[in-house]
Amino acid sequence: MAEVTVGVDLGGTKIQAVVVSDRIVVGQSRCATPKTDAGDVMAGIVASIRAALDTAGKGPSDLRAIGIGTPGSVDAATGHVSKASNVPGFMDDVPLGPTVSEAFEGTCVTVDNDVRAAVMGEYRNGAGRPYRNLLGVFVGTGVGGGLILEGELRHGLGNAGEIGHMTVRPGGRRCSCHRLGCLEAYAGRMSIEQAARHHVDTGHKTKLFEIMERKGRDRLTSSVIAEALDQGDRLAIDLIDAAIEALGLALANANNLLDLEAIIVGGGLGDRLGEPFVRRVEQEMAKNLRIPERPPAVLQTELGDLSGAVGATVLAGG
Amino acid sequence: MAEVTVGVDLGGTKIQAVVVSDRIVVGQSRCATPKTDAGDVMAGIVASIRAALDTAGKGPSDLRAIGIGTPGSVDAATGHVSKASNVPGFMDDVPLGPTVSEAFEGTCVTVDNDVRAAVMGEYRNGAGRPYRNLLGVFVGTGVGGGLILEGELRHGLGNAGEIGHMTVRPGGRRCSCHRLGCLEAYAGRMSIEQAARHHVDTGHKTKLFEIMERKGRDRLTSSVIAEALDQGDRLAIDLIDAAIEALGLALANANNLLDLEAIIVGGGLGDRLGEPFVRRVEQEMAKNLRIPERPPAVLQTELGDLSGAVGATVLAGG
Repeated sequence: MAEVTVGVDLGGTKIQAVVVSDRIVVGQSRCATPKTDAGDVMAGIVASIRAALDTAGKGPSDLRAIGIGTPGSVDAATGHVSKASNVPGFMDDVPLGPTVSEAFEGTCVTVDNDVRAAVMGEYRNGAGRPYRNLLGVFVGTGVGGGLILEGELRHGLGNAGEIGHMTVRPGGRRCSCHRLGCLEAYAGRMSIEQAARHHVDTGHKTKLFEIMERKGRDRLTSSVIAEALDQGDRLAIDLIDAAIEALGLALANANNLLDLEAIIVGGGLGDRLGEPFVRRVEQEMAKNLRIPERPPAVLQTELGDLSGAVGATVLAGG
Repeated sequence: MAEVTVGVDLGGTKIQAVVVSDRIVVGQSRCATPKTDAGDVMAGIVASIRAALDTAGKGPSDLRAIGIGTPGSVDAATGHVSKASNVPGFMDDVPLGPTVSEAFEGTCVTVDNDVRAAVMGEYRNGAGRPYRNLLGVFVGTGVGGGLILEGELRHGLGNAGEIGHMTVRPGGRRCSCHRLGCLEAYAGRMSIEQAARHHVDTGHKTKLFEIMERKGRDRLTSSVIAEALDQGDRLAIDLIDAAIEALGLALANANNLLDLEAIIVGGGLGDRLGEPFVRRVEQEMAKNLRIPERPPAVLQTELGDLSGAVGATVLAGG
């Protein structure tokens, strides 16, 4: 008898799968994203789903449906994905939904955007449960977002929620999208790393890259940034101050336009820097609110790095 | 037999009433807003409604319902209004809905925000007809806005759509709301006038106030600004350039967040400066879009200064 739903969060570094039954996570599995090609990535997803089912004491015959949250451009009708630059082989058109469905004997597979899946996860099973109008902002490698208005996930023409590309500093830092002054150019981990490298090149001192090497990393991960902050590293402090200022302004602008009940702040950096970071973002936002006496609740995620996988089960009807 | 709906747009300078039958405007009336007290303003509204019915060859017995769009804070449940600083006596609590209802023998009166009424008018009967996801921005004394998402007018917690108070220039010009750098501080007519006076005080030359006096006005109306632009007045050109830049940025930010189908630009200044102004706003917006190859349609209002009154009939179920 079909009774569990599996959700998968496909990322550039990891594949996270969860098994959900009656809205409760009863199993999960995580593995590194293969660095080779799209075929290997899809095989990794199938293996993760099997492993997660295993931890729940379930098998493929217990599967009701599968949901997958993925970066890139998603054709929800066909389950195809493209333009996901950080997943090997996923810049081209990849038949993700059909391939995974076939591996599980035609089980229904729903594919959607990874950030929207995460917002849905927090809305249904996490910090967003008490609210019907909320914005989720995920501060990680980039800055993604998703909107729930009147209890429904908003797609707009397909890309609603892209708060990372609201302009917070006209003429400011160059963003990955090539425009100037986007929120992501200040708050995204990759932009923070670029800014740090630029400052080092121009003679600034920082422990950031020392910490990175000691931790055996090849990039400024959230935990590298967190440790530098703990050590009082001036450059790390300045960069995170700028990120908080940018987030506060963008969230205030979004709230002034939408008059929300709640804003949920997550993502790798948001989760790692945790409550003190979220409170500072809230204070910065408050300065720019149209109606400061009635601010939206500003909350951490409850599901942490499971938001996306749990949300994928919701999108799959689980 | 009840068959027509009346809509009223209450403003600081005029009261506009329309009579609508089967979505067609069949009568209208306009008068100056009394400058005395709330009682006179409400009497003026009642007189406007009677005059509009007259032009349609109808009487009070033909009234199905009345809708009123008003500035200020509206209690939709009771029809009371307060905090409307530009309508005499309307800073205090005014029983607008009940008073007008009583004057028409208990006819149902719906009271809502004037800008939201105008957006509703354009959505149902004007430029917004082909769309289900749109933002209306009304550039007048201040800058107001309203959102239709998935075919429904959004209220949020009561103030959704306040695009005028999105920050476009952190640390920039002081706004009427006391914060710095709001859209309204650059694009609202009153802010433009303040900036012009400040520039004159600091030695700038302009024909703006000469034109104002010649036209017998005591403020820089939209038509004064339009004439100065026509005469190539440098200060007027610079101020409108700044307004367009601010509008382009705010609209791009709103669109990046909401992924809209259309943006409608109206209001006293928007309507007066017309199509060339709207096209320049569109070009400025395009620079800041996340997905420039799929811009929203940017449109003038179709109903012009009747948007609000027609929209009020829609809010009244007409």
